Amino acid sequence: MRKIAESTVRRLSLYLRFLEEFEEQGASTVSSDALAGRGGTTSAQVRKDLSFFGSFGKRGLGYEVPTLKTQLREILGLGRRYRVVVVGAGKIGSALVQYGGFGARGFDLVAIYDNDPKKIGKLWNGLTVRDAAQLEKDLKHEHADIAAIVTPGDAAQAVADRLVACGINAILNFAPVQLQVPESVAVKTVNLVLELEALSYVLANR
Amino acid sequence: MRKIAESTVRRLSLYLRFLEEFEEQGASTVSSDALAGRGGTTSAQVRKDLSFFGSFGKRGLGYEVPTLKTQLREILGLGRRYRVVVVGAGKIGSALVQYGGFGARGFDLVAIYDNDPKKIGKLWNGLTVRDAAQLEKDLKHEHADIAAIVTPGDAAQAVADRLVACGINAILNFAPVQLQVPESVAVKTVNLVLELEALSYVLANR
Repeated sequence: MRKIAESTVRRLSLYLRFLEEFEEQGASTVSSDALAGRGGTTSAQVRKDLSFFGSFGKRGLGYEVPTLKTQLREILGLGRRYRVVVVGAGKIGSALVQYGGFGARGFDLVAIYDNDPKKIGKLWNGLTVRDAAQLEKDLKHEHADIAAIVTPGDAAQAVADRLVACGINAILNFAPVQLQVPESVAVKTVNLVLELEALSYVLANR
Repeated sequence: MRKIAESTVRRLSLYLRFLEEFEEQGASTVSSDALAGRGGTTSAQVRKDLSFFGSFGKRGLGYEVPTLKTQLREILGLGRRYRVVVVGAGKIGSALVQYGGFGARGFDLVAIYDNDPKKIGKLWNGLTVRDAAQLEKDLKHEHADIAAIVTPGDAAQAVADRLVACGINAILNFAPVQLQVPESVAVKTVNLVLELEALSYVLANR
């Protein structure tokens, strides 16, 4: 795997969003300047980011929108669909399942788990909440690529350990803990309350 | 304002979560080791993080849970409530308003805006969707501390400019753009699709 900085991958995702918007607006080519403006970066940075993966665009003509879009999707591994299991059927787990916007991006929520008997068996937006005890058994028969951990903080590490033991290599962590996983496992953490508290800290200490 | 790294502020938020959990479990004191374990860090790091803000804890006795909790809440600026406006009544805006879990953390969603006539006037979980055109007028009369931008990417920068002109100093950005704001304005970005694509990139390139 070519070692590309996380910040580069993030910008590639942003460029892809912009290309989709430019395409919707009927643009067939786009300059590195235009991509840079929307990404809060410079055209030199755009060219450098894209140069990691080969040579795109023509001097003076910019990039062909559909071509670059396809190439970015390939680089980001979006040429296929990903199966995502959600562990934790609390408020955020519910919001994830109800949101329903991930399928359009290639990420299919295929199962949701909880250990609360009152939740197990309930139907949530087409998905039946399953017993977390059957996680190992299910993952043996139904492959999953990514797991979202949406449990309380004190349960998250044990869930992560079980998922990793089942061969899950990519975790989207919503629990307020720093998960300990082997180096081969990728973890991305999302926590709105932590982000809000980072803002309150700034507001309180300015 | 003491210049504390963002990563330190994030760990302080994590420590606060753990203290709340320890308190629920009836613990009255906690060691830096225990805090470190849940934060994926070392007890030396815990002591260093807390030492920025004064001296807490007693050697050999650890930290008093309620005392440290109160002190962390003060450091993070959580001794007061924050008024949050949401701009953009799409799927994620809806999920934010429906979620309803921010109030318990001191962040009150007080208004939601959109420019779609079909959405304006609708009642969402007790909040009426307002016309985005009246943002400036409203913010003059109804103070807000934090704005969440949940618009499409191509609308986000213009909304950010308007919010900053209204005196908003803290933005939680869900739009897939890198916002350009004055240095005095704090921005935190949250984007689940970018996180998922960072995971798909890793899975595709391992």
